[in-house]
Amino acid sequence: MNIETKTAHFTNPLYLESGRILEPYDITYETYGLLNEDRSNAIWITHALTGSHHAAGVYADENKSGWWDGLIGPGKAVDTEKFFVICANVIGSCFGSTGPISEDYATHKPYRYKFPVITIKDMVKAQRILLDTLGIHKLEAIIGGSMGGMQALQAAVDFPNLAKKVFVLASTHATRPWAIAFNKIAQEAILEDPAFKQGYYDPAEIKAKGLVGLAVGRMAGHISFLSPDSMDKKFGREYKRTDGLYELFGKFQVESYLEYNAYNFTKWFDPLSYLYITKAINIFDLSRGYDNLEEALKAIKSKLYLISFKSDMLFEPKESKEIYDLMQKVHAKEQSDYLEVESSYGHDAFLVEIEKFEDYIKEALNG
Amino acid sequence: MNIETKTAHFTNPLYLESGRILEPYDITYETYGLLNEDRSNAIWITHALTGSHHAAGVYADENKSGWWDGLIGPGKAVDTEKFFVICANVIGSCFGSTGPISEDYATHKPYRYKFPVITIKDMVKAQRILLDTLGIHKLEAIIGGSMGGMQALQAAVDFPNLAKKVFVLASTHATRPWAIAFNKIAQEAILEDPAFKQGYYDPAEIKAKGLVGLAVGRMAGHISFLSPDSMDKKFGREYKRTDGLYELFGKFQVESYLEYNAYNFTKWFDPLSYLYITKAINIFDLSRGYDNLEEALKAIKSKLYLISFKSDMLFEPKESKEIYDLMQKVHAKEQSDYLEVESSYGHDAFLVEIEKFEDYIKEALNG
Repeated sequence: MNIETKTAHFTNPLYLESGRILEPYDITYETYGLLNEDRSNAIWITHALTGSHHAAGVYADENKSGWWDGLIGPGKAVDTEKFFVICANVIGSCFGSTGPISEDYATHKPYRYKFPVITIKDMVKAQRILLDTLGIHKLEAIIGGSMGGMQALQAAVDFPNLAKKVFVLASTHATRPWAIAFNKIAQEAILEDPAFKQGYYDPAEIKAKGLVGLAVGRMAGHISFLSPDSMDKKFGREYKRTDGLYELFGKFQVESYLEYNAYNFTKWFDPLSYLYITKAINIFDLSRGYDNLEEALKAIKSKLYLISFKSDMLFEPKESKEIYDLMQKVHAKEQSDYLEVESSYGHDAFLVEIEKFEDYIKEALNG
Repeated sequence: MNIETKTAHFTNPLYLESGRILEPYDITYETYGLLNEDRSNAIWITHALTGSHHAAGVYADENKSGWWDGLIGPGKAVDTEKFFVICANVIGSCFGSTGPISEDYATHKPYRYKFPVITIKDMVKAQRILLDTLGIHKLEAIIGGSMGGMQALQAAVDFPNLAKKVFVLASTHATRPWAIAFNKIAQEAILEDPAFKQGYYDPAEIKAKGLVGLAVGRMAGHISFLSPDSMDKKFGREYKRTDGLYELFGKFQVESYLEYNAYNFTKWFDPLSYLYITKAINIFDLSRGYDNLEEALKAIKSKLYLISFKSDMLFEPKESKEIYDLMQKVHAKEQSDYLEVESSYGHDAFLVEIEKFEDYIKEALNG
């Protein structure tokens, strides 16, 4: 599959929800498939906290495929032989789009804490501008999971005429304190790590050495993506060193898993971006600007597909169900649909159990 | 109520499960009420991870009462006008009993990493020796929650003729990866904190300044004590600064709660003890030394009361239920009883919702 990775540079100011302005800014994005003549076959994919524009395919010089490669590609549920698929790195992130370690054009130094707080609404606004620039004013669908689901929901409310169908997976309409608490561990661990230097670290050095605070925070993240039952299945009480039960630093399987993933993560993600994006997740509330959630949902014209996963504790099924129930109340029955997927993978399911919802998405896209 | 705080010094070696020896060692304990003439009215209370011997009453010079003061005292469920109640600080802890920052008598320096790994079995063995020394060879009951429940279970198996009744609250027969994972965050954050100095910190300095790694770890602990629903009820999405939603470091109520408790904790708990006690919790498995859990439970002669709390995610009700079901299978029906308490307080319920199980314990003790 052909992957085009591009970066668009915007010189017009981006007016943010906070009242602040981002100017100029870049958005890095990828596209898969071909846009048809009447520009009507586009699907916009929105990514999660640590995701990127690289949603599908494999680069020539790497063997790691895109984060939703199982779902997107030729002949797959999101069929790139039929659809033109686009995925952009959100502003605030660290994979090419403007974020806190990008250069502030006013000072020619990284923004760091001068970077404005970004919201989910800001993320979709910036991506909408990218779509407009590409001449895409109508979408077949928007599809996203977790923070990507928040973007999909926000876009459905903010741009009612943009997409025919909107798919929201493993997400919520407002982040609950449980998720905020896990993010708090990460924020505290990063901020208080001496190597973080109060934000004045050298990004290259941090990536080479691995920031402990970011690793500790990522461990919290990985716990929040699972559940007691999913951990039982995944790890049990397997002990890596059978001779070492009475060694203080002996390791259970789950401990090795957390260590490996946490310290690997520090090689490819930036701590300031982690602070800014978790902040965006924490303050996400679809009803902001409306009297309540019901009023916000009334704005939606797209067909809304809500997909939740039974063992997801970060964004529980009842959170998606609440949106669905309100959609059913304020719109025609056929304007929304709800799928609760049986899964023991927790929040991770939206990334790893694609076989459980790909047919649902495929049918919805082709129906 | 009269509180006697004492420290017993033992010069005989304590043979540990690991094969190592602790010699000599101290055990700090408190007693409430009076031991009757035939020494038959004693109740042994076992404490949780961060608990201490100070289970009940208020010291003359402090206004903070013991951690189970609502349950234990004159006229309370564990009635000190009727029972002689004893609670000892576990070895490995930091409130007077020998632990990793105690002086190693061989070198006259703190043990630090030279301290042996302690297990739940070791903890109860040491406390059993204390009881023997006090001339207490029969108990009316053993009562403990969380890690205290592990001790109660282990004592029931190891000393079948010791207690008439054993109460296990909010606990498990073997720690699951979910709990181990939360402990891992704490261990990693402590170990990697430069101020921890690889265990060679000055304990007084650490307490005065507050070790960030311990605070971050405690945040993880506090999350594990709650649940998504209990956090909704306790905090909601209340924001401490209504003017500051777009400030990067603005605070949700849950964030303030975690910060306050975490940094307060560092003033009174020791990081090396935290490493050693979480290790003991991680490797707890009641069936160790037996073919399986059923075989271990067969050893029990006491009546076993299992109390779980519906929203407890750290040690879920099904873990207590599993013990109960096996007890029902291998013993007479009346040798075990199970109570599942309706609660939205998560694991914390065993400390904060005493009114929901005090009558149950009172009746069982007096029945």
